[in-house]
Amino acid sequence: MDALDCIHTRRSIRKYEDKDVPDDLIKQILNAAMTAPSAGNQQPWQFIVIKDRVVLGKITEFHEYAQMCKDVHLAILVCADTTSLRHEGMWEQDCSAATQNILLSAHALGLGAVWCGVYPRDAKMNGFSKLLGIPEKIIPFALIPIGYPLQKSSKVDRYKKEKVHKDKW
Amino acid sequence: MDALDCIHTRRSIRKYEDKDVPDDLIKQILNAAMTAPSAGNQQPWQFIVIKDRVVLGKITEFHEYAQMCKDVHLAILVCADTTSLRHEGMWEQDCSAATQNILLSAHALGLGAVWCGVYPRDAKMNGFSKLLGIPEKIIPFALIPIGYPLQKSSKVDRYKKEKVHKDKW
Repeated sequence: MDALDCIHTRRSIRKYEDKDVPDDLIKQILNAAMTAPSAGNQQPWQFIVIKDRVVLGKITEFHEYAQMCKDVHLAILVCADTTSLRHEGMWEQDCSAATQNILLSAHALGLGAVWCGVYPRDAKMNGFSKLLGIPEKIIPFALIPIGYPLQKSSKVDRYKKEKVHKDKW
Repeated sequence: MDALDCIHTRRSIRKYEDKDVPDDLIKQILNAAMTAPSAGNQQPWQFIVIKDRVVLGKITEFHEYAQMCKDVHLAILVCADTTSLRHEGMWEQDCSAATQNILLSAHALGLGAVWCGVYPRDAKMNGFSKLLGIPEKIIPFALIPIGYPLQKSSKVDRYKKEKVHKDKW
């Protein structure tokens, strides 16, 4: 898939076929995530690949916007390891760039995904920490359910010229 | 350019040809930025397109990591409009997704770019607010110098299997 087409036809996909995502595609998606830029190349990210349907179902008990986890066969939880940051205050940006690469690479591979916000919502962060046994200094950041899409991906035009300023505000 | 190749061959580019970037490419990059996902589709981003070489040069006075602005012909400052957020605490993630789309679309168009962090560094944020006349509720978030690259973009492998966990930490 062409890179610009990929950016423009990526949509938030919340309905999926009842079908597993093969491990080699999961690895390609994780590889794309780890290729994201980060502050001073600090790469603060960690990933929990969730395929256990019982675990996926339990996410819906504390994340009201992740109800698609009842049906999906795969979700990736992006976390931040805050124990070895070289640039304080930048890990949210690093993990966001990795998350965007996950969404784009999943779409490029014929899959559909959606960014479910976790950080900085305490109830959701605590829900994941308890469910997945995540240590204190590791912060659950974003959940991305991924599956074979049952929704179509059409191109949208969100360009708004009033958001563009020239040389000054 | 293939989408996965684009993700894997994008590098931080800090040396550029002495050459303007055409307006139609700038618009394509901004369009890609505005196509990013955001929390509840709140699209909090604003963009300042800086082409004035005098203004670009002044950035180097308060941003030590943006010295390439002495040579570049274009930089985009991604800002956040915090006056109409529907989902508090998520705008950093929204603006990061837009910034990653800027980096990827620039690379897909044959350009080179680099993410220079601004938020949450007060001196850099204040420097931009003063230089560009940015109102109080608009937050300077990230600067992306963009030009025709003088550096090569090679593929890197940053995959680290120790960053991948299965079904639990």
